[in-house]
Amino acid sequence: MNANGVSFNQLKHFISNAMIKLGLPPDDALKVGHIMAEADLQGSDGHGVIRLPSYAKRIKAGGINLNPSMKLVKEKAGMAILDGDNAMGHLVMKRAAEIAIEKARNCGVAWVGSRFSNHAGPASIYARMPMEKNMIGIYFAVGGANHTSPWGGLDMLLSTNPIAIAVPAKNEPPMVLDMATTVTSYGKIKVKAQKGESMPEGWMIDENGAPITDPHKTDGGIMLPIGGYKGYGLQLMVGVLAGTLNAAAMGSSVIDGNADFSTRSNTGQAILAIDLDAFGDVDEFKLRIDQLSREMRDGKRMPNVKRIWLPGEQSYEKRKTYERDGIDLHPNLIAQLDEFAQAHQIPTLSQTPSS
Amino acid sequence: MNANGVSFNQLKHFISNAMIKLGLPPDDALKVGHIMAEADLQGSDGHGVIRLPSYAKRIKAGGINLNPSMKLVKEKAGMAILDGDNAMGHLVMKRAAEIAIEKARNCGVAWVGSRFSNHAGPASIYARMPMEKNMIGIYFAVGGANHTSPWGGLDMLLSTNPIAIAVPAKNEPPMVLDMATTVTSYGKIKVKAQKGESMPEGWMIDENGAPITDPHKTDGGIMLPIGGYKGYGLQLMVGVLAGTLNAAAMGSSVIDGNADFSTRSNTGQAILAIDLDAFGDVDEFKLRIDQLSREMRDGKRMPNVKRIWLPGEQSYEKRKTYERDGIDLHPNLIAQLDEFAQAHQIPTLSQTPSS
Repeated sequence: MNANGVSFNQLKHFISNAMIKLGLPPDDALKVGHIMAEADLQGSDGHGVIRLPSYAKRIKAGGINLNPSMKLVKEKAGMAILDGDNAMGHLVMKRAAEIAIEKARNCGVAWVGSRFSNHAGPASIYARMPMEKNMIGIYFAVGGANHTSPWGGLDMLLSTNPIAIAVPAKNEPPMVLDMATTVTSYGKIKVKAQKGESMPEGWMIDENGAPITDPHKTDGGIMLPIGGYKGYGLQLMVGVLAGTLNAAAMGSSVIDGNADFSTRSNTGQAILAIDLDAFGDVDEFKLRIDQLSREMRDGKRMPNVKRIWLPGEQSYEKRKTYERDGIDLHPNLIAQLDEFAQAHQIPTLSQTPSS
Repeated sequence: MNANGVSFNQLKHFISNAMIKLGLPPDDALKVGHIMAEADLQGSDGHGVIRLPSYAKRIKAGGINLNPSMKLVKEKAGMAILDGDNAMGHLVMKRAAEIAIEKARNCGVAWVGSRFSNHAGPASIYARMPMEKNMIGIYFAVGGANHTSPWGGLDMLLSTNPIAIAVPAKNEPPMVLDMATTVTSYGKIKVKAQKGESMPEGWMIDENGAPITDPHKTDGGIMLPIGGYKGYGLQLMVGVLAGTLNAAAMGSSVIDGNADFSTRSNTGQAILAIDLDAFGDVDEFKLRIDQLSREMRDGKRMPNVKRIWLPGEQSYEKRKTYERDGIDLHPNLIAQLDEFAQAHQIPTLSQTPSS
């Protein structure tokens, strides 16, 4: 354990040990541990180890297939649909990204959708996988529960359906957009609840349109889309691309992942890989991204604005800090994880070695 | 001419005649006329015949290549970059969509980017081209002038960079999202000015971050992105995908298309075609879209909401009305076009035959 926090490896092995205890094969447990710990490492703390108890609940309820046979049910040179056989979503989307990368090397561009997947953590993790191979990665997902309604409606038919886009740079941090199409996400609400903070107005309304600010009283609350009807349109389209296109759940067929832990979720996601090498010289592209980053960041600022950020830049800095100093987990979360460890008879975080 | 408006063919031939007079080859003039008239037909009236005078100004100033040699400068099985040789953007993106459709038939998915293109009219026109071939069409573009800044910044480095996504349905109207990544557009601001109304807060701010509500005092005003920093991220990413990726203009290299009519704009766009046939049974997909549309539209509504709309549904209804009754052009616009016709010695709209 580092002086100020938990090391990445410690967290990875802690999660991996938990997953093995829950019945995942060790290789798969390690992959899930790696991705979940990476979520915390990059500051996506609503999608990291905080999810362990709810994943455990789903696994114990039989809602996850621990020994899945994933297969490509549709395939052409530039696309595939991967049936995840109800595996942990992390495993499905890691595999989907690998296939997209391989196909994009040949075709220039490739799209892989999933069905019978599950919640897979932060969108940017998967958009970053092509990025690490000199590609642009784009990721869409149907959220794990419907928290919002069509614009003007009251029925919970839409989720936070996120978009992530990851673009490599040469000397600047990569540009990594990772956004829910709602003003907030359930991950962020869970973090607020965990920290005992209230939510700002504008995140969620009740069915009379009044703001909900207590993160413990979100039952029946409607999350607001970004940009009003435009965000509703984006939510719907992300859902079509990640869900409907793959015959995965969308709209009324999305189960409430926070209440129902045993039904197959048939979660759909999609990943698009764009191979920069097909479009021209990769270094020249990256230098153009560097220049674009600098002109955005170095321009004139509004009064009281200390710095202009690029998408993903704060996460990039957090990653560097956490790699150096350890990951700063909230004491409430650590206490919860200690309890989890005792209940599952695995080493606690502080008992888990760093290597 | 129909009883209440201008027929699509009349408008198409009027624009085509103008384009021939301005020097476009007749085939190209007809293609541009068709697309511009279709913009008006679907209610995208800020992108239709209203643009004819400014296109004429650019053509006369030498800002458009009337006899271009478009060519594919990069190509793989699932992608291409089309160099438009500074042709009218409509011609470049119609060709780009055709190539994307052809390649998607083979690969399942295909992406075609443009460079040295120009303003091409409404985004949804091009997203609809794959849609008419049982594909999902996705279109991104770098806007024709920078009207907004990075989040927290003052430098005009970003445009309204639109996204369009078109999805075919079976018995319901297609889902067609066509949105700027800014809250408003200059077209809407001009309408407010004409009506003597003020703009709501949230559309535009001055350099101190204070809202601008007088539509006559927008000089130096910064348009706001949807969803604050999220919309800024989307603007930037759309610009990277449509501009930077193709070595087209983005950021500081975007010329002000409203002020500079002679410099090559090097406009970039991108189109993605997703062939539904590769993903499964096309009719089954379309029936899923039908069902999704109906469950969105037929759900419970908030107080005072008369109807829940799907993206593109209002445009779809306008298209049907205009096909039946003719396109309803504002009398001021018709007067302006009559003047244009006289100045260019072409038949006026009412003198143009409907067939």
